[in-house]
Amino acid sequence: MVTKEQIHDSSLPVRERMEALIRWKQQEITSALAALDTVTFHTDKWTRGNTGGGGESMVLQNGTTFEKGGVNISIVHGKLPHEAVTRMKADHSNLKESAKDGSVDFFACGLSMVIHPINPHAPTTHANYRYFETTDPETKEVQAWWFGGGADLTPSYLYEEDAKHFHQQHKDALDKFDKDLYPKWKKWCDEYFFIKHRGETRGVGGIFFDDYDEKSPDEILKIVESAFDAFIPAYCPIIAKRKDTPYTPEQKQWQQIRRGRYVEFNLVLDRGTQFGLQTPGSRVESILMSLPATAAWAYDHHPEKGSDEDKLLEVLKNPVEWV
Amino acid sequence: MVTKEQIHDSSLPVRERMEALIRWKQQEITSALAALDTVTFHTDKWTRGNTGGGGESMVLQNGTTFEKGGVNISIVHGKLPHEAVTRMKADHSNLKESAKDGSVDFFACGLSMVIHPINPHAPTTHANYRYFETTDPETKEVQAWWFGGGADLTPSYLYEEDAKHFHQQHKDALDKFDKDLYPKWKKWCDEYFFIKHRGETRGVGGIFFDDYDEKSPDEILKIVESAFDAFIPAYCPIIAKRKDTPYTPEQKQWQQIRRGRYVEFNLVLDRGTQFGLQTPGSRVESILMSLPATAAWAYDHHPEKGSDEDKLLEVLKNPVEWV
Repeated sequence: MVTKEQIHDSSLPVRERMEALIRWKQQEITSALAALDTVTFHTDKWTRGNTGGGGESMVLQNGTTFEKGGVNISIVHGKLPHEAVTRMKADHSNLKESAKDGSVDFFACGLSMVIHPINPHAPTTHANYRYFETTDPETKEVQAWWFGGGADLTPSYLYEEDAKHFHQQHKDALDKFDKDLYPKWKKWCDEYFFIKHRGETRGVGGIFFDDYDEKSPDEILKIVESAFDAFIPAYCPIIAKRKDTPYTPEQKQWQQIRRGRYVEFNLVLDRGTQFGLQTPGSRVESILMSLPATAAWAYDHHPEKGSDEDKLLEVLKNPVEWV
Repeated sequence: MVTKEQIHDSSLPVRERMEALIRWKQQEITSALAALDTVTFHTDKWTRGNTGGGGESMVLQNGTTFEKGGVNISIVHGKLPHEAVTRMKADHSNLKESAKDGSVDFFACGLSMVIHPINPHAPTTHANYRYFETTDPETKEVQAWWFGGGADLTPSYLYEEDAKHFHQQHKDALDKFDKDLYPKWKKWCDEYFFIKHRGETRGVGGIFFDDYDEKSPDEILKIVESAFDAFIPAYCPIIAKRKDTPYTPEQKQWQQIRRGRYVEFNLVLDRGTQFGLQTPGSRVESILMSLPATAAWAYDHHPEKGSDEDKLLEVLKNPVEWV
C-alpha cells in the first residue's frame, strides 16, 4: 500500500513519488465517485509482457448515477526504439541514445479517467496526469523527463455556474504556484480538445499541458498534486447537484448525440488513443474505457436556434473565459 | 435525368458514363430499400465551393426496417496540390504535373452507401464504387485513371446462408468477366476491413478493390456495373427474410456493441473517412452518414463460449471462404 508520505518524501526518485501519487489518487477518486452511486468499481490488474510493468483499471458500469466510468493507472517501462527517440529529440535535445542500437530506456506512469453520468444534466469529465522519463542506457541516470496532464468538463447542457466552478477550482490550484499556468493551460485545453471537422470544442474545457519540464521536478510534482487535489471538489459537487434533475427523452437523445461527438474526438483526434491503439501489446480495453456506454448519430442534426441545446453549441464554437 | 443508354454509350467519356451509372444506381437502390420500409429517403443536394462539383445525399432515418441508411453520390473536380500528386506518383507514374505550380487537374465520382437495419438478425451493409482520373493541365487529355470499390456485409448474428448468398451474387457478377477477380477482391476485402486493435474483421466480407486500371476503362466500367447490379439481389432478399425475426433485448444490446466496433473501424481505420475529415471544405455530414444511429461500448465484453455471439466472433477472427 502507498502512503501519503511517499508522495512528499524528496529523498525518493520522482518516478516513485509520482507512482505513489497516482495510486493514492486512484483510490481517493474512485471512493469519492462511488459515494455518489449505489454501484462500485470493479478492478482489473494487467501486465505488459513479463517485465514491462502494468496497471490497474477500475471500472464502474450501469450504476444509478454513472453509466460508465473508468479510472486507470499504468506504470510501464522498457526501451524506446530509435525512430521514437528521433521524433522525441525535436522537443528534448538532451536525449542520449544507446551506442549499440540507438534505443533509450524509458519509464512512464499516469492516471487517466473518464466518467459518463446517466443524467443528461450531469457532465462527463476526463482527467489525466502523467510523468515520463528516459535514462541514460550506460549510467542509468535520468536524462529527459516531463509531466503532462489536465482535466476538462463535457456537459450536454450548459450550466454556467458548473463551468465556472470547475475552472475556478483548477485555477486556484495552479495560482498558488504560478499565476501564468492557468491562462496558458486553459487556452491549451480549448485548442487540444477541438473537433476540427465539426468546428467545435469537445466541452467547456479546463486545463491541459504537456512536455512540462520548466521548473524542478520536485516543484512540478507539487503543482500536479495540487491540480489533482482540485479534481474531486471541482467535479463531485456538480454531479451531486445534477444527478437527480428530471429530464425528458429528447434531452437524453441530445446527450447521446453529444456522446457521439465525444467518440469522434477520442477515435479520430486524441493522440493518446491513437498512440495506444497503434502500440503492439497495449491493453485495448483500458484505452477504449474512455468511450461512453451508449452514443448516437443523427444525420445533419441542428438544434433549434435559441434552444438549450443551441446554447451549448454556442460556447463550444466560441470558447468562453469562465473565470 | 440520366438514362441507361448513357451508361453504355461508348462514344461518351468514361467520366460521364460513370456519373450516369452512379446516378442511376442511387435511384434504383434507394427505391429497392424503401420498398422494404414504410419510411422513405430524404434528399440533400450539396455543392463543393462554386465550381468544384457536388453531390446528393439520400438518407433514411428511424424507419420501421432501417434505423439509419445513406446512399450518397458525389461528382467533384479541381486541382490536386503538388504534395498529393507526389504521393500518388508512387502508384501512377504517368501523372504529369503542371509546369507552373506542380498541380494536376482531377475528376472523381462515386456512390457510397451504408445501411443499418433495426433488427439485430438483419445485417448492416456497405457498398461503394468510384472512378478517379487526372487530366494533363495543358492538353486536357486523360492521364492516370482508376476505379475502386466493393460491397461487404456486417451481421451481428451469423447466418451462413446469408454470407454465402451475398458472396455468391458478387462472385457471379465478376466471374462473367474474369475468374481471378473474386478470389483476389474477396481476400482484399478481408484485409482492408480488419480492425487491427481488436484482431477481428468488421464483418463477413464481400469484395474490395482499388487503383484498378488493368483492363480498358470500357471493360472495367462493365465489371463495375455488373458488381453494382449484384447489390440489390445480394442484400435485399436477406433483409426481407430477417427484418421481422423476433429478438430479445440482449440480442439488441449485442448488435449495439457490434455497431461500436463498426464506429471504431470507420473512425480509426477507414482511409476514405480519414481523408474526407481532413479535407478542408468536405461535407462532414455526408462522410459521417456511415455511422449507425446508435452504438454501445461495454468494458471488456466477451460472449459466452459456444453462444451465437461467440460464433460470429469466430468467423471474424478467422475469415471463411464462403463460396
